Amino acid sequence: MFLGKVLGSVWATHKESGMENLKLMIVQPMNFKGQAQGSTVIAADRIGAGIGENVIVSRGNPARMLFDNRSVPIDAIVVGIVDAYELSDEVVLCHESSGEGGEPNE
Amino acid sequence: MFLGKVLGSVWATHKESGMENLKLMIVQPMNFKGQAQGSTVIAADRIGAGIGENVIVSRGNPARMLFDNRSVPIDAIVVGIVDAYELSDEVVLCHESSGEGGEPNE
Amino acid sequence: MFLGKVLGSVWATHKESGMENLKLMIVQPMNFKGQAQGSTVIAADRIGAGIGENVIVSRGNPARMLFDNRSVPIDAIVVGIVDAYELSDEVVLCHESSGEGGEPNE
Amino acid sequence: MFLGKVLGSVWATHKESGMENLKLMIVQPMNFKGQAQGSTVIAADRIGAGIGENVIVSRGNPARMLFDNRSVPIDAIVVGIVDAYELSDEVVLCHESSGEGGEPNE
Amino acid sequence: MFLGKVLGSVWATHKESGMENLKLMIVQPMNFKGQAQGSTVIAADRIGAGIGENVIVSRGNPARMLFDNRSVPIDAIVVGIVDAYELSDEVVLCHESSGEGGEPNE
Repeated sequence: MFLGKVLGSVWATHKESGMENLKLMIVQPMNFKGQAQGSTVIAADRIGAGIGENVIVSRGNPARMLFDNRSVPIDAIVVGIVDAYELSDEVVLCHESSGEGGEPNE
Repeated sequence: MFLGKVLGSVWATHKESGMENLKLMIVQPMNFKGQAQGSTVIAADRIGAGIGENVIVSRGNPARMLFDNRSVPIDAIVVGIVDAYELSDEVVLCHESSGEGGEPNE
Repeated sequence: MFLGKVLGSVWATHKESGMENLKLMIVQPMNFKGQAQGSTVIAADRIGAGIGENVIVSRGNPARMLFDNRSVPIDAIVVGIVDAYELSDEVVLCHESSGEGGEPNE
Repeated sequence: MFLGKVLGSVWATHKESGMENLKLMIVQPMNFKGQAQGSTVIAADRIGAGIGENVIVSRGNPARMLFDNRSVPIDAIVVGIVDAYELSDEVVLCHESSGEGGEPNE
Repeated sequence: MFLGKVLGSVWATHKESGMENLKLMIVQPMNFKGQAQGSTVIAADRIGAGIGENVIVSRGNPARMLFDNRSVPIDAIVVGIVDAYELSDEVVLCHESSGEGGEPNE
């Protein structure tokens, strides 16, 4: 999985079967110093991640296995909203009071 | 999944089994600022994406699962045609009137 | 999938089970301007791709699914020999008369 | 698989189904000269890897298969804690007496 | 698959289930000119590849399928020891008399 920051969302009315009613978020992979690393990813989200929140994203076949209908053709999904992380004996809290616009390491 | 722009299509008469009657599109991965990022991909398309349109592409095993015959050996498929996306509180519309030649962020 | 050019072949007599009687080709990923991009790949080939030909290569789990014996441990396979592609309203033919030594965009 | 060094851990209370009771570690991929290479990964850990330890991480679908409930949506897992490795006829021991803070090639 | 050169091996006594009795080799991906390309990989080996030998490595889910117990959480395996390869009408032999220390293109 990788750490990412939710930047926005994507709309598509013309879709493949299995993509109905899926919320699609734009996620920027981040390192644990609050810096962007690598290309943005479009990930499905079923747990209500908000813009600006730090999330854990899982990629590939495992993303698809959450659906009883295994034909959902997604390859990335938000699997957790990060509360905090510990790095080099320092604990970093991720939630801002508003849940929006928070920087990963503030 | 990643955001991509359809650049063209590929023809192959000599193919592996399971590849019959599949439309294969050339897709350039894009960031959400309208810039190309990374290498072009050949993706199957069953939803009629046109040249110049912004699409969502899914990769790996999930692409294959859309087919009842699970032996279709594709590793990328267009899963949606992007209407619009919201990034940093700005909504970006993706469709041009013609559906061709539109830039991703105009 | 990606566009590639067949550069050669590989021989191995000491192999894992499931690799018997598989032709293994050296394939250089290409962009659609005839330039190499990224690292060479070793792909299985069952459709008779020749040296110098442009091919479509599929990677990962889907490659394996073509075999009734699902234990074939390959992660890349040639799924098509490219006849032509259309890019920016220009059609590019890929076959040379000899089928060998052709440049991708001639 | 790749060699990695455990840097810390991540907490998330709001998670996808299947992610309950999973310890999530921050792992930095390393080369065998003790240098970081590439982006940090979030990997599940069931074998008790400690901060500073060298571990082997497996990615993709295989990570998920360790769970009887195949719907666990993880794409990376710690599969071993490295005791030592041999490279160019030199044996490198990885454990420090404390198990924490050890450099990969000391 | 990719061409790699076996550089060494890794020992881990504390492992996930399914990793018992697996030989784990350090493999450096190579191009076909004898140069290293990209990061080292830890691959399982059941066919007895020796240090310095050129091997073919398969990654991802296919690696796992060789085991009757599908829960073996590996994502890379040596699937062949390279005898020779043909590139641009030149045949390159890979075995040295000793099987150790041979350069890929000698």
